[in-house]
Amino acid sequence: MSDTTIAAISTAPGIGGIAVIRVSGAKALEVCHNIFKSARSSFSLLNAEPNKAYFGSILENGEVVDEVILTYFKGPNSFTGEDVVEISCHGSVFIQQKILQILLKYGCQLAKPGEFTQRAFLNGKMDLSQAEAVADLIASNSAASHRMALSQMRGGFSDELSKLRTRLLDFVSLVELELDFSEEDVEFANRSQLKLLATEIDTAIQRLANSFSVGNALKNGVPVALVGETNVGKSTLLNLLLNEDKAIVSDIHGTTRDVIEDLMTIRGITFRFIDTAGIRNTRDKIESLGIERTYQKIEQASIVLWILDCTQLSEHMEWLTEKIAKRAEGKKVILVFNKIDKIQGEEMEVIGQMFDRFDAERIYISAKNKLNTDELENLLVKAAQLPEIHPGDVVVNNIRHYEALINAGTSIKRVLEGLENGISGDFLSQDIRECIHFIGEITGQISNDEILGNIFGKFCIGK
Amino acid sequence: MSDTTIAAISTAPGIGGIAVIRVSGAKALEVCHNIFKSARSSFSLLNAEPNKAYFGSILENGEVVDEVILTYFKGPNSFTGEDVVEISCHGSVFIQQKILQILLKYGCQLAKPGEFTQRAFLNGKMDLSQAEAVADLIASNSAASHRMALSQMRGGFSDELSKLRTRLLDFVSLVELELDFSEEDVEFANRSQLKLLATEIDTAIQRLANSFSVGNALKNGVPVALVGETNVGKSTLLNLLLNEDKAIVSDIHGTTRDVIEDLMTIRGITFRFIDTAGIRNTRDKIESLGIERTYQKIEQASIVLWILDCTQLSEHMEWLTEKIAKRAEGKKVILVFNKIDKIQGEEMEVIGQMFDRFDAERIYISAKNKLNTDELENLLVKAAQLPEIHPGDVVVNNIRHYEALINAGTSIKRVLEGLENGISGDFLSQDIRECIHFIGEITGQISNDEILGNIFGKFCIGK
Repeated sequence: MSDTTIAAISTAPGIGGIAVIRVSGAKALEVCHNIFKSARSSFSLLNAEPNKAYFGSILENGEVVDEVILTYFKGPNSFTGEDVVEISCHGSVFIQQKILQILLKYGCQLAKPGEFTQRAFLNGKMDLSQAEAVADLIASNSAASHRMALSQMRGGFSDELSKLRTRLLDFVSLVELELDFSEEDVEFANRSQLKLLATEIDTAIQRLANSFSVGNALKNGVPVALVGETNVGKSTLLNLLLNEDKAIVSDIHGTTRDVIEDLMTIRGITFRFIDTAGIRNTRDKIESLGIERTYQKIEQASIVLWILDCTQLSEHMEWLTEKIAKRAEGKKVILVFNKIDKIQGEEMEVIGQMFDRFDAERIYISAKNKLNTDELENLLVKAAQLPEIHPGDVVVNNIRHYEALINAGTSIKRVLEGLENGISGDFLSQDIRECIHFIGEITGQISNDEILGNIFGKFCIGK
Repeated sequence: MSDTTIAAISTAPGIGGIAVIRVSGAKALEVCHNIFKSARSSFSLLNAEPNKAYFGSILENGEVVDEVILTYFKGPNSFTGEDVVEISCHGSVFIQQKILQILLKYGCQLAKPGEFTQRAFLNGKMDLSQAEAVADLIASNSAASHRMALSQMRGGFSDELSKLRTRLLDFVSLVELELDFSEEDVEFANRSQLKLLATEIDTAIQRLANSFSVGNALKNGVPVALVGETNVGKSTLLNLLLNEDKAIVSDIHGTTRDVIEDLMTIRGITFRFIDTAGIRNTRDKIESLGIERTYQKIEQASIVLWILDCTQLSEHMEWLTEKIAKRAEGKKVILVFNKIDKIQGEEMEVIGQMFDRFDAERIYISAKNKLNTDELENLLVKAAQLPEIHPGDVVVNNIRHYEALINAGTSIKRVLEGLENGISGDFLSQDIRECIHFIGEITGQISNDEILGNIFGKFCIGK
């Protein structure tokens, strides 16, 4: 257990009706006792019962700073596993800051980002992947990403991995025991059982690693590149899509622009829009004006929305089509013919035929008049092709976990190969140890300060 | 007691480590019981002890939405005086919104702004001026405004007014009793004692009404008009003052730009900067380009910062000086000679002499090089001349209270006049009743739905 007592404002920054300041550590109760005057005159906070709320005042130099409700959670039955006091105060920024300052004056240290959750991990209240899920849970902005984070927080795949890892540990001990008796040529570790386990682990790792593309799309949004020449109505369309969503999101009290910038959730799927510079309609300028950057952005996307102006197809269309088609290979392409309000039906057909050789969904819209934009959304949802996540489904959505899984997968494949080729126990043990190490990185059984710093540094303060 | 149960997110909008959703009303516990699964399987929330926190999950259709801590406050020993349940959940916007939706689905109504505090008032947990102080407390952004709001919330001057009002009520009953016996010419109400009480009330009202200018300045900031021709460096100076402050304020985790826009707190005093359009340096354009609006803004201010460019005094300076001086009469004027980095000492002196006939503080600065800006702040603080507020000091900071006080003052003065002139009991009683009415408006003993709607409508949701 850490010997410092930390404090931070745990509720969202800004003015609210109330705010909560969290104090965690061995001296949490003592510090709060020194600054708190209960409404019941005879009561001392040092006698506080666990899980009980107390009404009173925070004092500084005998002067009342605020009337608060203070709740005591006794370690290890608290979020961090340490003694925790939560101070629920009036939500003015001034008061929040003031109470925090008083806590620091009385010996608390300002909590670093994620330090409460880090302590929960260090005190064995959760494993590392569960701790990481806490941050994901807080950042979740759709039903799917929320469900995924919650499932991970409640155990998720780290349970399964932990068990496989333990079985692997048993085997490696046996293999290493053989090494001690190497001159006697004994075999403690049953090779065919080990092979079965390694195959099982390989399958599990593959399954988890494969879920990453879905998990990542759910967490960070399905990447959609918007490509088009200038003046085809790309911005209008983007604004239309985003604004409609922002209107919905702004119903969700307090969502800030920053957070949802370029993200929109359609029918539960979050899309991340990657805008590209408009390609200029002059041949000799095309190369120079960022087409390379546009290509790169296409490569980041899994869906390409290619917006075209029905009324004015570029003279370079064929050349451009070829270029974009080449880069968009393996991705879902949706051809969006914009400005249909300005042309006739037969013209549409002619334009459509020009793209017949191009294997892509197509849709005719008017961004300006909001024609067919619902259908465009349908196409996007269809193109995203994300399976629905059910409660309890195991999905990897964390790049750190994904990399560790890939590494663990490589090791376990080497183990299988080694078993096939009958390699010696010392090499076998090394490969198994490597696999155990990488699995342990996910659950936090293997960790170091740098890894922890990276993980918890991304948390918000107060969590 | 209201028969609806209300719910709202009570912490600041946006993403935080945790968030608190408040439920208040007769069915608070029942609704929460229906959506909560305790971590202790045998426990039913319906058996919850007051002031106790319970760990468990919020469920929707059997699926876990979040792991939460739920605290029960039993009415009347709660903020609203009704049964209250506070749900402390993970601070994602998605989760906050989701839990709120579930509560609404299970029969809660979305709380209107200030409805929790309004219920506290209606249930007799606080009087009206105390309830209003809750909103002030949440909005307070300086030590002085915070102290003022807290003092008012803890009883403040409404205690004193209530007592005076009760004594006045006793007298008016006696006066009205006389009317019943009007033919017998009795005098139940001792006129000299009534006169003493009326004088006492008059004095108290005067004292409170006089404190309003201080209270208002503390609450809304001391209004400072920035006046100057274009290109004198007005914007640079304003940004310098505000940015320095914003830097400080941004230390206060989460203060938003909107809230502190144009407000800055210097040595505990909040200033509200009123920017004016730069006056154009061309005589025939001066009238048309908003000088009238500038005049109006000067009139709203109690301090005028007149910024001049040392290096280039306008040819219309004398004319302008006269105009501005006239409007700024009775206000503190500070002449700010900017761009001193560009001129010599002797030049400064010459320029200074040009304004000798002008009774104002003066200061030479370079906004660009941040020269003497500390001294400028000192001058501002000096010009604000706000007395320090001590804990328990009675200061009126609410325009509604101020207006009621002025009205009550007018009535009580009529009472005194009437006593002097020996007017008849029925007229006397009418004036006393009027005074009683206006005092009652402050404490809420007299209130109507419209007044309450106005007051609580300005609260944030969730308080």
